Amino acid sequence: MTTRVDGRNADDLRPVTIERGWSAQAEGSALISFGGTRVLCTASFTNGVPRWLSGKGSGWVTAEYAMLPRATNSRNDRESVKGKIGGRTHEISRLIGRSLRAIIDLKALGENTIVIDCDVLQADGGTRTAAITGAYVALADSIEWARERKFIGQKAVPLIDTVAAVSVGIIDGEPMLDLAYTEDVRAETDMNVVATGRGLFVEVQGTAERAPFDRRELNELLDLAVAGTDTLAEFQRTALGIDLPGATR
Amino acid sequence: MTTRVDGRNADDLRPVTIERGWSAQAEGSALISFGGTRVLCTASFTNGVPRWLSGKGSGWVTAEYAMLPRATNSRNDRESVKGKIGGRTHEISRLIGRSLRAIIDLKALGENTIVIDCDVLQADGGTRTAAITGAYVALADSIEWARERKFIGQKAVPLIDTVAAVSVGIIDGEPMLDLAYTEDVRAETDMNVVATGRGLFVEVQGTAERAPFDRRELNELLDLAVAGTDTLAEFQRTALGIDLPGATR
Amino acid sequence: MTTRVDGRNADDLRPVTIERGWSAQAEGSALISFGGTRVLCTASFTNGVPRWLSGKGSGWVTAEYAMLPRATNSRNDRESVKGKIGGRTHEISRLIGRSLRAIIDLKALGENTIVIDCDVLQADGGTRTAAITGAYVALADSIEWARERKFIGQKAVPLIDTVAAVSVGIIDGEPMLDLAYTEDVRAETDMNVVATGRGLFVEVQGTAERAPFDRRELNELLDLAVAGTDTLAEFQRTALGIDLPGATR
Amino acid sequence: MTTRVDGRNADDLRPVTIERGWSAQAEGSALISFGGTRVLCTASFTNGVPRWLSGKGSGWVTAEYAMLPRATNSRNDRESVKGKIGGRTHEISRLIGRSLRAIIDLKALGENTIVIDCDVLQADGGTRTAAITGAYVALADSIEWARERKFIGQKAVPLIDTVAAVSVGIIDGEPMLDLAYTEDVRAETDMNVVATGRGLFVEVQGTAERAPFDRRELNELLDLAVAGTDTLAEFQRTALGIDLPGATR
Amino acid sequence: MTTRVDGRNADDLRPVTIERGWSAQAEGSALISFGGTRVLCTASFTNGVPRWLSGKGSGWVTAEYAMLPRATNSRNDRESVKGKIGGRTHEISRLIGRSLRAIIDLKALGENTIVIDCDVLQADGGTRTAAITGAYVALADSIEWARERKFIGQKAVPLIDTVAAVSVGIIDGEPMLDLAYTEDVRAETDMNVVATGRGLFVEVQGTAERAPFDRRELNELLDLAVAGTDTLAEFQRTALGIDLPGATR
Amino acid sequence: MTTRVDGRNADDLRPVTIERGWSAQAEGSALISFGGTRVLCTASFTNGVPRWLSGKGSGWVTAEYAMLPRATNSRNDRESVKGKIGGRTHEISRLIGRSLRAIIDLKALGENTIVIDCDVLQADGGTRTAAITGAYVALADSIEWARERKFIGQKAVPLIDTVAAVSVGIIDGEPMLDLAYTEDVRAETDMNVVATGRGLFVEVQGTAERAPFDRRELNELLDLAVAGTDTLAEFQRTALGIDLPGATR
Repeated sequence: MTTRVDGRNADDLRPVTIERGWSAQAEGSALISFGGTRVLCTASFTNGVPRWLSGKGSGWVTAEYAMLPRATNSRNDRESVKGKIGGRTHEISRLIGRSLRAIIDLKALGENTIVIDCDVLQADGGTRTAAITGAYVALADSIEWARERKFIGQKAVPLIDTVAAVSVGIIDGEPMLDLAYTEDVRAETDMNVVATGRGLFVEVQGTAERAPFDRRELNELLDLAVAGTDTLAEFQRTALGIDLPGATR
Repeated sequence: MTTRVDGRNADDLRPVTIERGWSAQAEGSALISFGGTRVLCTASFTNGVPRWLSGKGSGWVTAEYAMLPRATNSRNDRESVKGKIGGRTHEISRLIGRSLRAIIDLKALGENTIVIDCDVLQADGGTRTAAITGAYVALADSIEWARERKFIGQKAVPLIDTVAAVSVGIIDGEPMLDLAYTEDVRAETDMNVVATGRGLFVEVQGTAERAPFDRRELNELLDLAVAGTDTLAEFQRTALGIDLPGATR
Repeated sequence: MTTRVDGRNADDLRPVTIERGWSAQAEGSALISFGGTRVLCTASFTNGVPRWLSGKGSGWVTAEYAMLPRATNSRNDRESVKGKIGGRTHEISRLIGRSLRAIIDLKALGENTIVIDCDVLQADGGTRTAAITGAYVALADSIEWARERKFIGQKAVPLIDTVAAVSVGIIDGEPMLDLAYTEDVRAETDMNVVATGRGLFVEVQGTAERAPFDRRELNELLDLAVAGTDTLAEFQRTALGIDLPGATR
Repeated sequence: MTTRVDGRNADDLRPVTIERGWSAQAEGSALISFGGTRVLCTASFTNGVPRWLSGKGSGWVTAEYAMLPRATNSRNDRESVKGKIGGRTHEISRLIGRSLRAIIDLKALGENTIVIDCDVLQADGGTRTAAITGAYVALADSIEWARERKFIGQKAVPLIDTVAAVSVGIIDGEPMLDLAYTEDVRAETDMNVVATGRGLFVEVQGTAERAPFDRRELNELLDLAVAGTDTLAEFQRTALGIDLPGATR
Repeated sequence: MTTRVDGRNADDLRPVTIERGWSAQAEGSALISFGGTRVLCTASFTNGVPRWLSGKGSGWVTAEYAMLPRATNSRNDRESVKGKIGGRTHEISRLIGRSLRAIIDLKALGENTIVIDCDVLQADGGTRTAAITGAYVALADSIEWARERKFIGQKAVPLIDTVAAVSVGIIDGEPMLDLAYTEDVRAETDMNVVATGRGLFVEVQGTAERAPFDRRELNELLDLAVAGTDTLAEFQRTALGIDLPGATR
Repeated sequence: MTTRVDGRNADDLRPVTIERGWSAQAEGSALISFGGTRVLCTASFTNGVPRWLSGKGSGWVTAEYAMLPRATNSRNDRESVKGKIGGRTHEISRLIGRSLRAIIDLKALGENTIVIDCDVLQADGGTRTAAITGAYVALADSIEWARERKFIGQKAVPLIDTVAAVSVGIIDGEPMLDLAYTEDVRAETDMNVVATGRGLFVEVQGTAERAPFDRRELNELLDLAVAGTDTLAEFQRTALGIDLPGATR
C-alpha cells in the first residue's frame, strides 16, 4: 500500500478534532477539523416552523454551507458581493440538510425548526464531509438545549441515529480514504459517502472526474468509506458523551 | 414482481422516443421523451473557448438545464422572474455537464465550445436522466456539424464513448427502474446512475429520501440501472446511426 | 407585387399550425407555428386571485413570454442566469397580457386567475404575434376546463371575442404581411397589430426602424394586418371548434 | 365639444414650458413641463462608442427614463432598492431611444455616444411624451456643444429632423389631446404618437385599455396627435432658436 | 485667511436657497441649494407603521438618498440598472434617517410613517449635508399637513428641535467651511457635522482622507461647523416661518 | 465611577487576545477577541493592482467585513442568500479599508494589492473596532510575507504607523470605553474612534442614538478613546514583535 504525501496509509483518516460548544451564542455548536480543514457548525433553534409546515405537528431541519473568502489557498469573491450563490454552495447546503433529516424523526422534534450553519474557516479538502460530521454534534446539542427548556418533551427521541460523512477516491488506481485537497485534485474518481452510526447509507455520490469507474472500484471505495464513517461516529460519541439519545449503536 | 401503476414491470423503462434534429436553429438537437417527460436538448457550437481555457489546445463542453414554468402539474415561478437560479437547477446543470465531459476527449475537440441546453417541456419524473440521454444525441450531432465545417479534424475522435442516465429507486421495499413522478415521491431511496455505453459509471447519486439503505439494496439498484442505461444506449445508437464515432461498443 | 424570399406574396401569411392540447399538464395549451416560429402556450388556471384583487368579484389574466436560449440562430444567455429580465421580454409579456384581457370579461371569469406562459421554442420572426394567437387557444381551453369543474358558472361568458395578432412591415417601400426574421431586420417600418375576431383593434404598435412613415403607409399596413388577423381567427376557430363561447363572429 | 376638468378643449395641449440648460453639469439639458408633469432631460456626450459599434464610423444615441419615488401621488419604491427595473421603465426607455435615433444620422454623428437621461420629477400623465419632447432639446444642445469642441465636424448634420410626442385618448367616446393623469385612468383607449417636425410618424402605440377601437376612432386620434406634435415642434424651435440644424421644417 | 476659489472666506457658506413646497404631489417638500448643489427633498406621509413597530404607539421616520445619473460632472450608471445600491448611497441614506430621528419624538408622531426622499439633481460637494438640511423642511411641512388632517393631535409636538448639517475640511492645512466639490477632493481631512438648532451634536463624522489629524485640528473644525449649522438653522426658520413647533431655539 | 455589568471600570477595555497566524492559507492573519467578540482577519496579497490603478506605481489596500449568520444572539439571514449586501456591512467594510490606507504608503507598497477580510465569528459589540485592530496585524504580516518573496523591496516602508480602533459611549450620562453589546444598545451616544499608534485620528464617528450630545461630552469620549487605542497599539506591538516596520512610536 502506497504511503501518502502526509504519511498516511490509504485507509487512514486525517487527525480529527471536535471542539463542542465553540460558540457562546448558538444553541449548539462545534468547530470540527479534518486535518487542515476547519468548519464552524452552529445550530439555531427556533420554536415554530415555516408556514408551509405549520399545523402538521412536524419540525424542520435545514442547513446552509458557506466558505470564508480566504479559506482556500487563493481568495474567492464573496457570494454576497457577487449577489448570488454558486451551484456548488447550493448543492452542499442541500446535501447537509438531507443528511441530517435522514437521522431525525421530525414528528418527535415537534413544531420546532433547527438551522445548521456550516462555515468553512479553512479548507483543505473534505469540507462537506467535515461539515456533515460536525453538524451532527451541533444538532444533537441544540436538541438537548431545547429539551431542557421544554420545547421538546422529556421522552421524545428526535435523533434516531448518528450521521457522519467522509470522502474516498481513486488516485493512481488506488482507493484512498479522506482526501486532502492536493489528493482531491488528482483523483480519477471521488465519492462522498454519508452513513449513519448503524452503518446504513444516507447518500452515496460518486463522480468520475477523469475516468469512469467500474463496479469493483465502486465496491472498494464503499468499503473504505464505511470504515471511515464508523471511526467518525466514535469521535462524535466521544465529543457528545456516550449516552446521548440516538448516539448509541 | 409487483406490477406498477402504468403496467410496467419493476425492470421496465417507460416508452422512449428520440426526435433527432427537432430544432432548425441549433447545430445539434433532440427532443427526447421518457414516458410523459419531454426534454428539448440543443447543442450550440462555437469556435473558440472561454478565456480561462484559451491557448491550451483544449475545448469545453458545458450544459444548462431548466424547466418551463408549466412543465409540472402546478405552475412554478420562472427563475428569471425570481432573479436567481435555484439549487436544484444548478445541481442538475452541473451533473449534465460533468456527464458529457466524461465521454469527451477535450483535446480532440480542439479549441471549440459546445453548450448543451436541456429545457424540460413536460415533466413526469426522470427529467435529469432524460436530459443527459438526449444531450448526448445533440452533442454528437453538433460534433459532426463542426467536422463538416472543418472546425474539427477529419480524424479527430472527440467522442470516446456514449453516455446515458436512468433513475432507480426503492418503493415499498422493491427496487424499480425509471421512476415516474408519482413513484418518485413515494420512493424510500432514489438513485440516478449515469453510465457509458461501455458500462462504466460516470455518476452514482443515491439518496435516502425516507429510510437509509443497506449495501444489498445499493447493489440491486445498481444492477437495475446498468441494464437500463444499456437499453438507452441502444436507443441513442438507433437515433444517431450505428457507425457514429464513439458510439460503437 | 414582389415575390418574397420564401415565395409568398406580400399579403400571404406563412403556414400556420396550431396543435391544441400539446401539454398534458396544463389546463389549456397550444403549440403554434407561424412558419419557422414555434411557440408553446400553456394556461395555468388557479381558483382565487392575487391579494390586490381579492373580494372584488373579478378575475385576472396575465402572461409571461420567454425564449429558449437556442430558439434563435445564435445562442442567447438565459435571463435566469443573467439574474434579470430584459426590456424586450417585459414588453412582450405585458403586451400579451393586455391583449388577452381586452377580450375577457373579468367579472364573468369570477375570482379566478389564469396565467398564460408563452415559451418560444424556435424563433423566426413574429414570435410575439404567434404567442398572442396561440395564447388565445390555451386561454379558451382553460376556461372550458374550469367550467367543467364548476369554477366558472355554466352560463358565464368570460370570453367576449377572439383575439389574434400579426406583424406587418414596409420592405423596400412595399407593405408586407407576417415578416420572417430576415424580412424583419430589413424592414424600414414594422408594426404589430392585435385585433379581435370582430375586427376591432386592441393594440397598434408601429415603429419606424429606419425611416419615419407617412399616413398613407400607415393605412396600407393596417389594411394588410386586419386581413391577416381575420385569417388567423379562422385558424383559431378551426382549432377550437366553431361553437366555443366568444369565438363566433 | 366637451370642456375638460381643467377647462381645456378636447384639442388643447396643457401649458408647455421648456427651461433649456437647466443643468450646469450636462452637455445639454432641458426641464420640460406639460402641465403638472415635469421631466429633467440631460444629455451626456462621450467621444467614442460602445465596443459593439467600434470602428464602424457610426455614433450611438440611447436613453434612460426613470421616475423619482414621489413624483406620483403616492410613493413608489425605488427600482434601485427593489434591485430590478420594471417592465414599464424598460419599455419607455427603449421608446425614447428609438424616437431620438429616428431623427439622427448616426454616421454624421461620428464615433460619439450621447446618453439622454429623462428623470420625471413630477408626474401628471404624459411623462413619456414630455420626456421625448424635452430629450430632443437636450440632444440638440449636446450636439452643438460637441461641434464647438470639434468632436463633430462643422458641416456635419447629425440632426435630420425634430421629434416630439404627445398622448391622445378616447374618454366617454370623445377623442382628446394630451391626457392628464385623471383623464388617462378613465380613457377607453390611449395612444402615444411620436412624430417628426416634418409630420412623419416615428411611433404609433395605441392600446385599448377598456374597449377595442375601430378604424374611424384610430383616424381621429391620429389627426389630433399630429396637430399636437406640430405645436410641440414650435415650442422646441422657440426654445432652441430657429436656425438650429435640423430644426427647420 | 486665504480667499477661496469662489471668493469665499474660510468660514463662509455658499449661497443657500430653499424652495419650500416645490412638489405638488408630496406632503412636504423643498428644493434646497448649497451653491451648485441642488437636492429635491420630498416627504411622504403614511398613516400606519411598518409591521415591526405595529401596536407600540410609536411612529417612524426614514430616508432614502440618491443621485441622478448626470448630477455630477461625468455620468454615473444608475443603481437601478446595476441592480444594487452602492455603499455610499446606503451610508448617506442611513445618516439622513438617523439625523431626522434625533429631533423627532416618535411617540408624539403617533403610529405614522414619514419617508423622506432626497434626490440630488445637481452635485457640487456637500450633497449629504444639503440633503439633511432640506429634509428637515420637508419633514416639518409633512407634519403640519398631517396635523391639519387629524393624523397627529393638535397638541402633539413631534418635532423637538431643528436639524441641519454642513461639511468642514482642512485644505492646505487650513480649516474651511462648506466644501465645494473641487475643495472636497483636495481636503486632507473632511468632516460632516449634523447639529440641532439648540447647538447639540447629532453626528460627527471626521475622516482623514490624506493625513491623520490631531486634537487641535478637530476642535477648529468643530468650531467652524457649529457656526455653519447655526446659520443654516436660520435659513430653515425663514423658509418655514418662525413659530413652527420645534423650530424655536 | 460606576462599576459595569462585567465588573469593568468605565475606562477599562475588555480582555483582548490576538492569535497571530491563525490561518494556514492566508499571507497574514489574526483571530482577535475583544471580550466575547471574535473576528478572523485574513490578508490576501496579490502581485498587481486593479485596472484603474495600473501603471501608476502605487498599490492598493481594501477590506471586506461580514458576520457569520449565527455570530449574534439570534440568527440573521446570510447576505449571500438575500442576494445583496446591507448598508451596515458596506459601511463597515469601507471604514476598515479607509482606516488601513491611512497608515499605508501606497507608493512604498508598489503595484501590489492586499485584501483584508474581517469575518465576525462571534459578536458582542465592537465588531468593527476589533476588526480594524486585528486587520492591522494581518496586514503587517502580509507585507513581511511579500517582502520575503521580493514583491516589496527590502528598504520599502509601506507601513508608516499602526492603527487601532475602539468604541466609546455615554450610558446613563457616563462616558465608557469599549462597549459590550448590552451596553451598546443602552447608550445615548456612541462613537467609534480610529487612531494611529502616534495618537492621531483617522476616523471619528460619533452618533447620538437617543440624545444629542454637547461639546464637553464629545471631549470626554475622545479622551477615553485615545487611551483605549493606545493600549490596543501595545497589544498589536506585542503580537507582532516590537521592531516591526511602522510599529514603533
